[in-house]
Amino acid sequence: MNEFVWPVRVYYEDTDSGGVVYHSNYLNFMERARTEWLRSLQLEQDELINEYGIIFVVRSISIDYLKPALFNDALYVKSKIKKLSRVSLIFEQQIIKQNEQTNEQQLLTQGIVKIACLSITEKKPAAIPQSVYNTFSAQSCK
Amino acid sequence: MNEFVWPVRVYYEDTDSGGVVYHSNYLNFMERARTEWLRSLQLEQDELINEYGIIFVVRSISIDYLKPALFNDALYVKSKIKKLSRVSLIFEQQIIKQNEQTNEQQLLTQGIVKIACLSITEKKPAAIPQSVYNTFSAQSCK
Amino acid sequence: MNEFVWPVRVYYEDTDSGGVVYHSNYLNFMERARTEWLRSLQLEQDELINEYGIIFVVRSISIDYLKPALFNDALYVKSKIKKLSRVSLIFEQQIIKQNEQTNEQQLLTQGIVKIACLSITEKKPAAIPQSVYNTFSAQSCK
Amino acid sequence: MNEFVWPVRVYYEDTDSGGVVYHSNYLNFMERARTEWLRSLQLEQDELINEYGIIFVVRSISIDYLKPALFNDALYVKSKIKKLSRVSLIFEQQIIKQNEQTNEQQLLTQGIVKIACLSITEKKPAAIPQSVYNTFSAQSCK
Repeated sequence: MNEFVWPVRVYYEDTDSGGVVYHSNYLNFMERARTEWLRSLQLEQDELINEYGIIFVVRSISIDYLKPALFNDALYVKSKIKKLSRVSLIFEQQIIKQNEQTNEQQLLTQGIVKIACLSITEKKPAAIPQSVYNTFSAQSCK
Repeated sequence: MNEFVWPVRVYYEDTDSGGVVYHSNYLNFMERARTEWLRSLQLEQDELINEYGIIFVVRSISIDYLKPALFNDALYVKSKIKKLSRVSLIFEQQIIKQNEQTNEQQLLTQGIVKIACLSITEKKPAAIPQSVYNTFSAQSCK
Repeated sequence: MNEFVWPVRVYYEDTDSGGVVYHSNYLNFMERARTEWLRSLQLEQDELINEYGIIFVVRSISIDYLKPALFNDALYVKSKIKKLSRVSLIFEQQIIKQNEQTNEQQLLTQGIVKIACLSITEKKPAAIPQSVYNTFSAQSCK
Repeated sequence: MNEFVWPVRVYYEDTDSGGVVYHSNYLNFMERARTEWLRSLQLEQDELINEYGIIFVVRSISIDYLKPALFNDALYVKSKIKKLSRVSLIFEQQIIKQNEQTNEQQLLTQGIVKIACLSITEKKPAAIPQSVYNTFSAQSCK
């Protein structure tokens, strides 16, 4: 199964006064990774809106916070399709911290994210366009 | 079982260019409600740090996005303790939109949030202080 | 001159690992206050879009950070119109911390915010609708 | 004078329901660029805290919003030191959108950001450590 890896650097804006990354910001990191995964497949979300009249939205998330990320940490978001249907897809995503000296990897956060395809006009579930579906399918079957 | 209700107004900062509240910001709304729930019980988080050396952190979240909230919406976050243990508690939280004309309530988002008690020095699981536990227990048993 | 006061509570989401409110979040607090000021005048921004086809956007900000706000602080945003023209208005806004014991007020942050009226279709400067202008003018002259 | 250029991609999290980047988020983009500028000079902010007991904080910002950035835009933040003193430095920063077809550059936002050096213990103005000052000075004089 294909895995897409996207780097994220932690800035002050991401942290809170507990000294760690604020819990909801990991969701932002995961969404950046999904956006860049789409881009890596030559799929731009603004073009999907214009060409097909569809938008991908988050339907549900289940996320575990195992260890905190800190200011200045160099993180990686690993993403792969866990399940693909005609109207939705389920991502498995992990946020990893790689020790810059030892290269050892530590799993900080993991999540299951369900994404639905909606028609932009009616905001109702819509079929993923065939060519897009094929692209996703090629990723999820390898 | 006791339920705590906290109002949240949607501002531009909460929305995204899809025209709806950005998905991770609902987690912020839920945390504001948990903070105000603690405050309503005369528990201030900065005092918990100073007095007991403990901090409450998010361990896991499971969240369903049913309907989107929009700019200017007047929302309510409903929170209750679903489960209480010596070192953690599980909240059930709902984000509700009340129609300002009809008063009809619509469930937009619901989540299960697991919170752990940590010692601030070692960042390891710690027992919830007895008096705090009793206060929580009084809330969860009613 | 009329002054509008809006309370803001500092949550974890607003702070950073320096232990203070992250600098750009004061701008959000100021915008919440301007939104509520409009609402207090029975002007809802979504209705301004629908009725008049106009939107108010931030053109420039000049902000001084004097003292930091901390987690859990109860703040007040004071806002008043400093200057009103046919196509824009300039706000003077202050973020104040009131000591909950002594009631002493401390100025934390102050800003000058220039807001322009734009037509929503062309995104070009537009005249503030007369009735809205009159409402603003009544505020700025008292 | 040396100029440091840092790329920023606009994600949904950065936008608002007006369809553009939310105004305070440009400040975050500018801070990311200053952080990366420091890193490019082998200055890590967490090491500055540990080694010298100093932190750099934002004292004031003056920002003009000329044209909006949109979802998916590929932006560049250009940063240079405008003025350097023993206890503070003033940055001039520009946010640029480069058309991916024509390579034409458009200035979207520009700001003047005053940064002060504080001692982490007393939170009072502190002299920039000599070696750090020399590094900054080498940047500002070229």
